[in-house]
Amino acid sequence: MSKFDEEREQLHNKLLEMSSLVEAGIEHSIRAVIHKDESAASEVFQNEARINTIEVEIDGLAIDLLALHQPMASNLRFIVAALKINTNLERMGDLSVNIAHSARSLIDGPAIGAIVDIPLIAGLVQTMVRKSLDAFVACDVVLARSVLTSDDAVDSLRTACYHQLVAFMEKDPRNIRPALNLLNVTRTLERVADHSTNIAEDVLYYVRGIDVRHQSGD
Amino acid sequence: MSKFDEEREQLHNKLLEMSSLVEAGIEHSIRAVIHKDESAASEVFQNEARINTIEVEIDGLAIDLLALHQPMASNLRFIVAALKINTNLERMGDLSVNIAHSARSLIDGPAIGAIVDIPLIAGLVQTMVRKSLDAFVACDVVLARSVLTSDDAVDSLRTACYHQLVAFMEKDPRNIRPALNLLNVTRTLERVADHSTNIAEDVLYYVRGIDVRHQSGD
Repeated sequence: MSKFDEEREQLHNKLLEMSSLVEAGIEHSIRAVIHKDESAASEVFQNEARINTIEVEIDGLAIDLLALHQPMASNLRFIVAALKINTNLERMGDLSVNIAHSARSLIDGPAIGAIVDIPLIAGLVQTMVRKSLDAFVACDVVLARSVLTSDDAVDSLRTACYHQLVAFMEKDPRNIRPALNLLNVTRTLERVADHSTNIAEDVLYYVRGIDVRHQSGD
Repeated sequence: MSKFDEEREQLHNKLLEMSSLVEAGIEHSIRAVIHKDESAASEVFQNEARINTIEVEIDGLAIDLLALHQPMASNLRFIVAALKINTNLERMGDLSVNIAHSARSLIDGPAIGAIVDIPLIAGLVQTMVRKSLDAFVACDVVLARSVLTSDDAVDSLRTACYHQLVAFMEKDPRNIRPALNLLNVTRTLERVADHSTNIAEDVLYYVRGIDVRHQSGD
């Protein structure tokens, strides 16, 4: 294996490590909300420092590869995609922290199940996250494209949640504070879905050299 | 001027064009909220397609520079920073569209001035945007650092707005819908500030080769 291939594999493995951490963070943050699970929220906060450290390491590896090996064609595209995927993963990590904060505020509030279907939207978003990361690992263009089409379903569900939560707030002013936290959770999940879409676009760019951003339906 | 310098200048100029468009978008979106100015909101929507087009152009120029000239040291850092600044600018453009949507929903609502001080937080955020872009143009490390310290002030102000808006909602259920739109405006402005911080960090990386992300206070 050449020095370049070795370092490229190192970059790839670091991205996989980052992906696992971020995916776990999202899962814990959702569990913290749904099951009012304080320890799941704490795990998210503990993960954050590690994610931030790896983000800096990945950028360093990518930039070293550019500087030392002057890669071309698909190797160059892989590194540019790695830089972008890295940024998206780090933001997703931040968003899981954001959800974990809302989970903490919700712990002493009313039962959530009757108000809004968080597991439904969370399930959709987690599937998008998983597919976008699997598409990256397997260079799977079909899987990456399937992520792009899921984004609309998340947006509609988020809008439905918004209307349910507004009605819940209007019914009783004591509902306002918990509803605002739940609104934050659904909105943040939608942002997680947006980052999965970005990653899927980066995969398409890297594998096929095509730029699908801002095309029809965007 | 060498071919590389020529193309590097072209990339720099495109980023300036993008910056101007994004800054104008933010300004119009804020004007739309504060003055209930429908035409300012429309300008934001019209700007969006142009911003998306330039985003793709800038990435293309940056990747061509990497592929054709294999730049080193500060030239390489400039191109990596350009890729990252480009992403941040495009997101800021999206956020101005988000604010313009809230502005439209607020047009038939109550006068905003008495509820929450949008001009104060907007002024702070616009100053951060301006400074981060000026720091990029002038390679000004001191200016870039001043952006990083402003972020805390925006966060505190946003928290204060949150409490004011919750109190406003709790007073009368008819206040809930306009207050949610105003909450969206303040939260989105905070996100614009976060992107300015990211740009300031990219400038520090590019000019000095130092990575200030995730250091104390982060």
